[in-house]
Amino acid sequence: MRSKSSTPDAGQASTDRAGLQDLLARFSACGATPGGGVTRLCASSADGAARDLFGQEVRAAGGTLRIDAVGNQFGLFALAEGEGAPLVMMGSHLDSQVLAGRLDGTYGVAVALRVGDGLMRARRAGKRFAADFCAVNWTNEEGARFRPSLLGSATYLGGHEAADALGVRDDDGMSLGDALAAIGYRGSDPAPPRPACYLEAHVEQGTVLEEAGRPIGVVGRNWGATKIEAVFTGAQAHTGPGRMERRRDALLAAAYAIAEIRAMAEGWPGLLHTSVGRIQVAPNSANVVAGRVEISVELRSNEDAILAEAGTRADALLRAAADRAGTDLTIAGRSERPSRALPEAVCRLLADSAASTGHEALRMDTVAGHDALSFLGICPTGLVFVPSIAGITHNEAEATAPDDLAAGLAVMRDAAERLCRCGGDPAAACGEASP
Amino acid sequence: MRSKSSTPDAGQASTDRAGLQDLLARFSACGATPGGGVTRLCASSADGAARDLFGQEVRAAGGTLRIDAVGNQFGLFALAEGEGAPLVMMGSHLDSQVLAGRLDGTYGVAVALRVGDGLMRARRAGKRFAADFCAVNWTNEEGARFRPSLLGSATYLGGHEAADALGVRDDDGMSLGDALAAIGYRGSDPAPPRPACYLEAHVEQGTVLEEAGRPIGVVGRNWGATKIEAVFTGAQAHTGPGRMERRRDALLAAAYAIAEIRAMAEGWPGLLHTSVGRIQVAPNSANVVAGRVEISVELRSNEDAILAEAGTRADALLRAAADRAGTDLTIAGRSERPSRALPEAVCRLLADSAASTGHEALRMDTVAGHDALSFLGICPTGLVFVPSIAGITHNEAEATAPDDLAAGLAVMRDAAERLCRCGGDPAAACGEASP
Repeated sequence: MRSKSSTPDAGQASTDRAGLQDLLARFSACGATPGGGVTRLCASSADGAARDLFGQEVRAAGGTLRIDAVGNQFGLFALAEGEGAPLVMMGSHLDSQVLAGRLDGTYGVAVALRVGDGLMRARRAGKRFAADFCAVNWTNEEGARFRPSLLGSATYLGGHEAADALGVRDDDGMSLGDALAAIGYRGSDPAPPRPACYLEAHVEQGTVLEEAGRPIGVVGRNWGATKIEAVFTGAQAHTGPGRMERRRDALLAAAYAIAEIRAMAEGWPGLLHTSVGRIQVAPNSANVVAGRVEISVELRSNEDAILAEAGTRADALLRAAADRAGTDLTIAGRSERPSRALPEAVCRLLADSAASTGHEALRMDTVAGHDALSFLGICPTGLVFVPSIAGITHNEAEATAPDDLAAGLAVMRDAAERLCRCGGDPAAACGEASP
Repeated sequence: MRSKSSTPDAGQASTDRAGLQDLLARFSACGATPGGGVTRLCASSADGAARDLFGQEVRAAGGTLRIDAVGNQFGLFALAEGEGAPLVMMGSHLDSQVLAGRLDGTYGVAVALRVGDGLMRARRAGKRFAADFCAVNWTNEEGARFRPSLLGSATYLGGHEAADALGVRDDDGMSLGDALAAIGYRGSDPAPPRPACYLEAHVEQGTVLEEAGRPIGVVGRNWGATKIEAVFTGAQAHTGPGRMERRRDALLAAAYAIAEIRAMAEGWPGLLHTSVGRIQVAPNSANVVAGRVEISVELRSNEDAILAEAGTRADALLRAAADRAGTDLTIAGRSERPSRALPEAVCRLLADSAASTGHEALRMDTVAGHDALSFLGICPTGLVFVPSIAGITHNEAEATAPDDLAAGLAVMRDAAERLCRCGGDPAAACGEASP
């Protein structure tokens, strides 16, 4: 049984909106690009500046900061009486792609910080809570500089050993551990215990909400994703004298593969997304036949059967591309993330919080990966989307209407306060009155 | 009318061979790779070390060194009486591709240095000459770090302004001028006057000599080359949520183009060589649809009509690839080097010198570009090839049999001495007795 919604206080909403816009503007200054976006690769100096700002905000709101071994930043806000209360965790990531938008993960981090600040104010105003709150900035969500993506959240939850995560290297050969140390964010604090519930707000990065005319999406399912690192090894040679029929051109093999990976999506219109976004060519010189080329293949679908068949076909077409160009093929890496439902209790709470703040949430899928997905099967997890204008994302022109950004914050604040009153139990929180 | 050949002195030949092998070994140490090759990009520290060695060799042989504005190194050997004698020039380049072979241009530079040393010894032993000799190391022949290739020789001959050449930038944005200054080779010496005759020795980089069982090739013609820098501009986006049909994927456009450029060569088997060896992708991240991709297209043919038609077809297929992937296309650069004959008088002299040293030269084409081609139409120019084992080149496994390397040196020594006796006139030198 759900509580009746109360209209949010207009003055508070105005303050929230201004505070959020101000915080987003300050984050946007870290790694700002001339085109109005950000380039804030994981563990770069720009990332360090954004992390510093995260820490300042945590302390200014009365929280305490922890930095774990892989650089995840936790802002802990003590709300409950005594030690050992359950934890409600909310966050996202401050790292970005190259020439990316201002929002992406930053929106979810800013929302978490503003929610933490609001909860601390509520506590000081006399409200009582049965859970503590934690705002998080996860290391290397993007996978732009270091692969795999979702590295910080997955390591926190035991999916990777910290030593392994610190050992991954960027394309210049620098390890994550050294890069974090260089910006002062290779931490040694104990990570907080696993939360009772994890929530994340994110910009949609698609056009579903915009086309539906809805400001709030509640994610009920994630698309599965198969990621393949394929290496073609040919014979490095001069592009001039060598006879065409004797060449073993690794870049040609990659080109065949890229075209075929794209063509495969035609078989399942709207149900399979495929791409190759990254290619590493050696020696990459105009007059040298490439000896070694690595490509990063991605396949995404909301149907596991399609994804499985696409994965099998991808293996075959990579092999065929190698054979056609006379190169060898090695699969250097392969990861498979299944399509899964997000817990119904959290979805209901988030839809209820949307209704409480004046919006009818749209139940939808996420095609992209988010840190929240690392928590599936570990604890109740929820993911809220706000619209992306024209679906533009991973692009300096990424934008969301200020009203929609504020709507997302209001939903997250409502859900978090209810959860913190109920010890982090989403089913119980659903029955709680809105703040 | 040709002179009768004399059998070269066995003791001198043995000394020449040992001196050449020793010098090649010392050059090989500059930028040596674990795989037995070299990585000696233009104006790198490894290039600086090789340049230092060039200078030491010039001075040890009694020559004087000049370094011009774009870093070309000239080792001047005064042979004739008085000032202002004609100049016989011989050289090649010390820069290399990444993970390249030990020989390539280094062989021709080492030969020129050994010839200079031999001529100075002959002069000290009382021989009289009517021309001076100059051993040259040309800057940035490869075009691996800075484009275009043949930059130093072309600038020396007025094909580029020095300021323009110094302003070209590598993929990290560093200018050639700054890179040369960093290794101490942005010179200010006046370049020597244009030579009466230019000669170059080079490894073949193909299998024509090996298949013919001949140690000496005399190049009678160069293949034409058309080089196109094509830029595809799409829309940078997340690889996940964006609908496939709305994507404007610049890497996909490039892949279509690379496959079609290769397919075009099927239309003229053995007469057209095509390749794409270099690709620059932005942002080049696994989960970002590429927004901008640049590829370097090369077309080579020994028939100008084929090359012209291939160039036209390339323009059309680049456009078709862009259209198919929904991207824009810009041609950022285009250069065309025609197929031309090398001067007959020099070819005859070189064939005569081969005969004088015990070999029947094979008249052949060069598919690859060489600094000697910069001199076509400017002064008599000759190019001698020695065999490449299995045609392997631009590869750490590049090799030539020591006997063949020594045979090339003997031919060059013979031709240079005759030219220097005749004031650099190849027709007159043909009538001269072998040394």
